[in-house]
Amino acid sequence: MPLDARRILDRCNALARHSEQPDGLTRVFLSPEQRAVNGLVLEWMRAAGMQARLDAIGNCVGRYEGERPGLPCLMLGSHLDTVRDAGRYDGMLGVIAAIECVQALAGRKLPFAIEVVGFGDEEGVRFGSTLLGSRAVAGTFDLTLLERAGSDGVTLRAAMQAFGLDPARIGDAAHRAEDMLAYVELHIEQGPVLEAEGLPVGVVTAINGGYRFAVELTGVAGHAGTVPMHLRRDALVAACECVLAVEAVAHGLPDIVGTVGRIEALPGAMNVIPGRARFSVDLRAPTDGAREQAWELLRARFNAIAAARELQLAISPLWEARTAPCDERLQAQLADEITAQQLPVRRLPSGAGHDGMAIIDIAPIGMLFVRCKGGISHNPAEAVDVADVEMGARVLLRFIERFQPRA
Amino acid sequence: MPLDARRILDRCNALARHSEQPDGLTRVFLSPEQRAVNGLVLEWMRAAGMQARLDAIGNCVGRYEGERPGLPCLMLGSHLDTVRDAGRYDGMLGVIAAIECVQALAGRKLPFAIEVVGFGDEEGVRFGSTLLGSRAVAGTFDLTLLERAGSDGVTLRAAMQAFGLDPARIGDAAHRAEDMLAYVELHIEQGPVLEAEGLPVGVVTAINGGYRFAVELTGVAGHAGTVPMHLRRDALVAACECVLAVEAVAHGLPDIVGTVGRIEALPGAMNVIPGRARFSVDLRAPTDGAREQAWELLRARFNAIAAARELQLAISPLWEARTAPCDERLQAQLADEITAQQLPVRRLPSGAGHDGMAIIDIAPIGMLFVRCKGGISHNPAEAVDVADVEMGARVLLRFIERFQPRA
Repeated sequence: MPLDARRILDRCNALARHSEQPDGLTRVFLSPEQRAVNGLVLEWMRAAGMQARLDAIGNCVGRYEGERPGLPCLMLGSHLDTVRDAGRYDGMLGVIAAIECVQALAGRKLPFAIEVVGFGDEEGVRFGSTLLGSRAVAGTFDLTLLERAGSDGVTLRAAMQAFGLDPARIGDAAHRAEDMLAYVELHIEQGPVLEAEGLPVGVVTAINGGYRFAVELTGVAGHAGTVPMHLRRDALVAACECVLAVEAVAHGLPDIVGTVGRIEALPGAMNVIPGRARFSVDLRAPTDGAREQAWELLRARFNAIAAARELQLAISPLWEARTAPCDERLQAQLADEITAQQLPVRRLPSGAGHDGMAIIDIAPIGMLFVRCKGGISHNPAEAVDVADVEMGARVLLRFIERFQPRA
Repeated sequence: MPLDARRILDRCNALARHSEQPDGLTRVFLSPEQRAVNGLVLEWMRAAGMQARLDAIGNCVGRYEGERPGLPCLMLGSHLDTVRDAGRYDGMLGVIAAIECVQALAGRKLPFAIEVVGFGDEEGVRFGSTLLGSRAVAGTFDLTLLERAGSDGVTLRAAMQAFGLDPARIGDAAHRAEDMLAYVELHIEQGPVLEAEGLPVGVVTAINGGYRFAVELTGVAGHAGTVPMHLRRDALVAACECVLAVEAVAHGLPDIVGTVGRIEALPGAMNVIPGRARFSVDLRAPTDGAREQAWELLRARFNAIAAARELQLAISPLWEARTAPCDERLQAQLADEITAQQLPVRRLPSGAGHDGMAIIDIAPIGMLFVRCKGGISHNPAEAVDVADVEMGARVLLRFIERFQPRA
């Protein structure tokens, strides 16, 4: 049975109808909407020739046995939950494309098993902690989260019970590393690189790690009319130099991105020289070493800027995520399959987080990006081209067919 | 009778006890607190040998006749109202020091009259329009303001009536230009220049004019992780370049100050590249030509920054005030009197607004600045040194004694 990209998109559309709000898409972990899409996904998995079940945390898991039962598996998939007011491809496209690929095998047995997983929680909208589904599969689920109340005040424990899941059995969802050959995920890029370069697909080098910091500079407030320029200790001007330093440092290093998304001048009156300024820094890099290097450069620049203006500088760490590097062998095979389609191979890091960040604890990970329109994601305007989806699915199918479990 | 700087400060302290809040100083136009201080000021004027009265807008006016009645006057003074949570010298020091100088004349007649005015409204806190007292004296009072509701919902008209004033007679407060020789005001600097240079007093060259603008840059928002640096159109980074341009342009021109007091990145999330950024610009200069020149330079820089990053730029004017240049002859005489005190003469513009901005329509204006602690004003921490007040009053008294009405 050939791949049918239009069916993939139709199924994404069918999933998008299950939303907590009628005009837009929001589907959070352990919601009635998740129950509805689980039903569809399990049905599609079975139709594709898989044994399908809900696992102990509420992930949809479809297993397609290999040449003999019980072989280690190549895991494919992505997530089925969404952010608020989401697009319909972020996550879902990877699950549906993987099912389509298994269906295209038409029962042909491979020297390994395949498992397709539709993770129940990746975005973390309801309980404020991401990757709950994939962490359970990786055996790294933090059981203390069970007592955490979600956005509706219901704890994760109570929500699981209401969903028909037994919190005491979360461990059953875990896979052993020896049963895993690799985890490969197809996902929309959520960025503009492939579109800018006219390419339908790309090979992910790493799921970037990141730092977030809050920075505060303190100088001396004063009257905007009466304090001459040479006697000022303006915290905002220094903060602006820091913002430009974030851009310059990120620009000067390969595949680093640095963003200041928030800034504030205090007291915040038009006729008062800002005595304080605050801003956020979000820094992401495809290796932990590069991230550390970028941050050290940046911290030195911030210190120099503050010192030159005789300001106080305070930096508060807010968040840190390790890089999840994609496996070289998986990258190479994905690249080979793209070359086989007569396409140039674009390797790029993923700036957004993905389930591979959890699964990397039990298997090498690989990711295939599919171009999305305008790089837009987490937005109802998220869009993909049917030809790109076809190319992505074709590369993934060839990857599966030619995948060699290590000896 | 010699000048008594300590009495000047004692009287400032006495006025500061009349505040709408017990812990701090706030005294707005036509308030019970203004009535109370008017009583004190009129009494001190009379004790100094003046005929004192409340004028049609509620200013305290004390007249000290010259060698014969009805001579044109040298007007001295400042304002008696305050900002919210004010210091006790901004305004009041100039009124009280002028009364002290007249008292020091001890009845000696001069070839001109002196009028000391304690303006009832300069700050504009209650009705949102500054200089109400001095505009009435200058004959430029905008009668449409009578229907404006103040911060308490009471119109200016009703507030005047409740204060015992007749709004129909505001014109009676106006002075004719032919009755005015000059207006000279002693005021705290409200800035740090004199302190930084170790000088008790300085001669004001002009009350700076100013522009205020709101600036908005529009680029493209995006995911902080997925959009590489070279594909960004980050509005905040451009805004930060503009903030640095404000500083650089103001630094590069004499006596110009430029301030960005407010800034905002939109949508304002740590992990979103700002698609829009807004900031304020406050630009002040001692001549209208210099202000225009600075603004033209700045606008060109803003345009170049926006163009280089392919952003849209929108500039909205918010406020404009003409420069009120101080009269050369008055500056020269004030400088002579400072020299006579064995002090170097520091000429500097006033970045803050003052009653001279209104009185300039009927008389040449001059201003003498007195050093204040840390340049702090509009703040309970406002402070002056008794020796500086003594020097200021001495210079002002010598100025009065040697003032030559033009032939």
